[in-house]
Amino acid sequence: MMRCVRQNKPFASGKRFILPQAVHVRDKNMNQPLEALRALMAERQIDAYLIAACDFHQSEYTCSHFWATRYFSGFTGENCTIVITANEACLWTDGRFFVQAEAQMDENFTLMRMGVKGVPTVTEYLQEKLPAGGCLGFDGRMMSTHDKKGMEEKLEAKGIRFAWEEDLADMVWPDRPDIQPAPVFELELCYAGESVESKLSRLRQTMAEKKADAHILTSLEDIAWLLNLRGGDIPCTPVFYSYVLLTQETAQLFAFPEAFPEDIQKKLAGYGVSLHPYMDAFEAVSALRDGSRVLLDEWKVSISMEKCLPAGCEVVNSPNPTWAMKAVKNETEQACWISSHIRDGVIMVRFMKWLKEHVGKEEITEISASEVLDEMRRNAPLNKGLSFETISAYGPNAAMMHYTSTPETNVPLKPEGFYLVDSGGHYLDGTTDITRTFVLGPLTQEMKLHFTAVARGMLNLANAKFLYGCSGQSLDYLARQPMWDMGINYRCGTGHGVGFLLSVHEGPQGFYFMSRFRASTGTALEPGMIITDEPGIYIDYHYGIRTENELMCVKDEENEYGQFLRFRHVTYCPIDLDGIDTQYMSEKEVKWLNEYHAQVYDTLKDHLSEEEAAWLKEATRPAAKAG
Amino acid sequence: MMRCVRQNKPFASGKRFILPQAVHVRDKNMNQPLEALRALMAERQIDAYLIAACDFHQSEYTCSHFWATRYFSGFTGENCTIVITANEACLWTDGRFFVQAEAQMDENFTLMRMGVKGVPTVTEYLQEKLPAGGCLGFDGRMMSTHDKKGMEEKLEAKGIRFAWEEDLADMVWPDRPDIQPAPVFELELCYAGESVESKLSRLRQTMAEKKADAHILTSLEDIAWLLNLRGGDIPCTPVFYSYVLLTQETAQLFAFPEAFPEDIQKKLAGYGVSLHPYMDAFEAVSALRDGSRVLLDEWKVSISMEKCLPAGCEVVNSPNPTWAMKAVKNETEQACWISSHIRDGVIMVRFMKWLKEHVGKEEITEISASEVLDEMRRNAPLNKGLSFETISAYGPNAAMMHYTSTPETNVPLKPEGFYLVDSGGHYLDGTTDITRTFVLGPLTQEMKLHFTAVARGMLNLANAKFLYGCSGQSLDYLARQPMWDMGINYRCGTGHGVGFLLSVHEGPQGFYFMSRFRASTGTALEPGMIITDEPGIYIDYHYGIRTENELMCVKDEENEYGQFLRFRHVTYCPIDLDGIDTQYMSEKEVKWLNEYHAQVYDTLKDHLSEEEAAWLKEATRPAAKAG
Repeated sequence: MMRCVRQNKPFASGKRFILPQAVHVRDKNMNQPLEALRALMAERQIDAYLIAACDFHQSEYTCSHFWATRYFSGFTGENCTIVITANEACLWTDGRFFVQAEAQMDENFTLMRMGVKGVPTVTEYLQEKLPAGGCLGFDGRMMSTHDKKGMEEKLEAKGIRFAWEEDLADMVWPDRPDIQPAPVFELELCYAGESVESKLSRLRQTMAEKKADAHILTSLEDIAWLLNLRGGDIPCTPVFYSYVLLTQETAQLFAFPEAFPEDIQKKLAGYGVSLHPYMDAFEAVSALRDGSRVLLDEWKVSISMEKCLPAGCEVVNSPNPTWAMKAVKNETEQACWISSHIRDGVIMVRFMKWLKEHVGKEEITEISASEVLDEMRRNAPLNKGLSFETISAYGPNAAMMHYTSTPETNVPLKPEGFYLVDSGGHYLDGTTDITRTFVLGPLTQEMKLHFTAVARGMLNLANAKFLYGCSGQSLDYLARQPMWDMGINYRCGTGHGVGFLLSVHEGPQGFYFMSRFRASTGTALEPGMIITDEPGIYIDYHYGIRTENELMCVKDEENEYGQFLRFRHVTYCPIDLDGIDTQYMSEKEVKWLNEYHAQVYDTLKDHLSEEEAAWLKEATRPAAKAG
Repeated sequence: MMRCVRQNKPFASGKRFILPQAVHVRDKNMNQPLEALRALMAERQIDAYLIAACDFHQSEYTCSHFWATRYFSGFTGENCTIVITANEACLWTDGRFFVQAEAQMDENFTLMRMGVKGVPTVTEYLQEKLPAGGCLGFDGRMMSTHDKKGMEEKLEAKGIRFAWEEDLADMVWPDRPDIQPAPVFELELCYAGESVESKLSRLRQTMAEKKADAHILTSLEDIAWLLNLRGGDIPCTPVFYSYVLLTQETAQLFAFPEAFPEDIQKKLAGYGVSLHPYMDAFEAVSALRDGSRVLLDEWKVSISMEKCLPAGCEVVNSPNPTWAMKAVKNETEQACWISSHIRDGVIMVRFMKWLKEHVGKEEITEISASEVLDEMRRNAPLNKGLSFETISAYGPNAAMMHYTSTPETNVPLKPEGFYLVDSGGHYLDGTTDITRTFVLGPLTQEMKLHFTAVARGMLNLANAKFLYGCSGQSLDYLARQPMWDMGINYRCGTGHGVGFLLSVHEGPQGFYFMSRFRASTGTALEPGMIITDEPGIYIDYHYGIRTENELMCVKDEENEYGQFLRFRHVTYCPIDLDGIDTQYMSEKEVKWLNEYHAQVYDTLKDHLSEEEAAWLKEATRPAAKAG
């Protein structure tokens, strides 16, 4: 599952929501809510109103309560910022969504193609359009302190005032859905591998090191990890809406108490964690002792919450310590990870076998194929749903990096060309994320060249040996080299961390050659980290190829030069040899391909029927280096 | 010429000074100046006094006036910080200098091996040793605002006071040499390629963009570049001690007026640049209009100078705009660069031929060999001296990355093993920096493996094709991969920028896999940048191998994915084929080696005698891929 290249947004991603049908197809003229909003703006002398697709926690994915950008614009892509002025309405999204935005977007909106030459950023647009001394409005609970400061810096020269106290969107959105808290459940120690007491103690120790009296934790994944609890408030992301306020003596959890079964409430009390209503968090922050040093992450904490801090408090701005802690999987988590990925690998192999054997013989469409795959996952032991909506894309549809098949776009799979499937499951013992591109029939030589290049990129990166201190930024080139050598690029990062029954995209580690992401900047890879390796080639209107394995960072030799590290593949599914032409590969690359395939076969063979194992043996046969 | 891995020091480097003989061998007990300093410290209630090897400009290399660390410690390595307390004297340097420091260091000093586990950093040492409320002394003109802030942050918890107003070293150093200003000369437009007016105008435009009323420029290389002037105040670095204070209307140059010939003084006046005595710079800063916005680089401007700013001034802290400007060579500079490197290549080829033909037949030592090479450079057209002291190292001596042969260490070259020579010249039309390791006789198979790995690393990096936006951090792995695959590392960056008749080490670009250097962090490579590519293998007590080419960044194709870039070799000298074993190389690597050698031959052949050309043809013969 790819993550996108998005300025100033560390968690931007290609993940798609599972959309309620109702939202998907809509009237193309939404003038009415826009005019209602403009009326409110005029009353308040607000010159521009900004709404971004996020929630109070800077979550990557959100629940329908927060889908205001969709309400106003019709566009369902998750990377979306809209700005409304008295006579303009503009929508920013990135290259993955240009086609989709054009199709879905309300006709009153103008599409601002992020990253395209000559297209202003949101801030540049505001710099230009806002009158000197003008007013920019937004819901301060939705904007991180970091983002607000960034805008402020750019807009202060024009004396722009910010009105962040009111959620105007809410006032003109009559049927706005509430947050629907799902039941919270415990992730047992046999999966989590570390007790809540131990996690709290480690976190408090870090607070002490940073001389912080209090810590405001607002990231939903971090809270879930810290408390070994999971929820279901956001599609495909088993978290629960909540805030945590921690001191050395107290731990307050602000959430929807009705979602917490009695035994969990008791356990929480046992850890010294008191449970309070969700929205009381703001008041609790206001009640912090004046003069406290408060550890918080300005990229995650909203400006509304930071404004609640008593004036004498000192902010210790730092990434949440839990961000880095949860990225390094402990030994139990690592063992569980392998188990869940073996089960998921069996599913992928069965799906691949079924698909390759049935395509062209019966009607299979993008949607019906993904239904087959999703059903297999949902029926698997320990499954807790999909980790994101399956991307099931045939032919030209796969050239759109974040395509989701809909009844309107759904096409039958023909026994020719490429079919790309990017999918994953949540399990009690881990979360999977795998992309395979399957060859359904004849390919041109250029398609083979491209397919082989993508496999080479994935393998080159996976086989890196590197000194401790290397970040994903320093290794990213390995995956891109085969593409760049041909003058081709994929417009996204090469890989991301994966949460343990949390968000499928997790930081801080990441593969990306530029330091634009907060994620990939200087975060050294650590043994126990999981990171995806997913290069691709996307040829507009023709096809898309992506091959994605998850890698686990492990120790290699330690000597006088330091600790060397390497990766271990933890995704088990053949790379379709029908697309590989070894004339484009070095001997080393062929060796790596064969080693990986041997690993897939050896790992899965005992979990398959005899027929399946025989099929897998053939699908993972050693390739020979061609002239 | 390597640059080192030095914390918080962007310009740290392996460059060696040409040492006056007097400094080189000295009494091992320097108790007297130490005690004199301690007496002054006691008078002033200073608990620790810090002296670093630098000057008022945070120059990488300095003149003898600034060699206080040598005066007190006896150690001549350029990466050196000493801290003296009432009963301790400690000296920090990095791994390149451990052996040398042990040999030279006064016995009253304790060596603090930077980067070695358990050894505290300077600041950690001070944190531990200074009493609460204690006082740390240093010469504020020698410490950058950036470094001071960094220390302050760490030491504030203990309430440490800084006494930065006095240069105590000066008071106990009776024979301290003065700065000896050498005559300043003009770099003509046919070499510089851009007029002073144009450079001043570009710089003032950047000031305007940053809304800066004034700009304090203290980097000697930047000043020399800006004014198309060169000097000779620092060995191997043709700069002149000076400061510049710039506004939109005025330009003040603070330097040693006696060093400026009349015609240059006139030209400066013509550009609107007024010339003032060197030390008047501090007063001029004090006289800035209160309330000014002052652009300066806190990594370069000393705390003494920043303290001169009127209290109402606002600092705009940013790398000096000239830093990035001068790194991108203009078309004239690029053409000149090639010319000077062809002449330098001819010298290197002649030296290589002479050496390979004469070793074992006549007495050649490290020193006599470097004298031969240096003499050839000094006699070359347009030469302005060496760009750094030649590293001429045979056998085990080359394992010390920054070895300089001295009469005590000098050894004869035998017809066996490796000889490493890292050298370069300054020319009116450019500055060269090249390392070659020559095979003087039989090698073990492991030596061939290592030699070939170093060549592969150099070639792999040199042949990268990459998208605009890539920094040296993202490409560094390519050079290291052959070494890392064997569990070997070189403990320095892979490459650095090169100044145009300025410092041989220049930023902001650099190859290094970690973002520790300011240099390599996020600085995208630009067409016109020069960068060295110099991987190596150093086997303690056995041998050292380094192969260094300069690369020029040039444009490759531009398409819908953006602008692709690549490198062009601009160093012309064979890689000794006697050390290459193609069984360790991929076909692609053999191809790259052969392409490079063909380029060397084609570029140089017409500049050589018939006999030399024939020899070069053989030395650059195509290698064949071995089993």
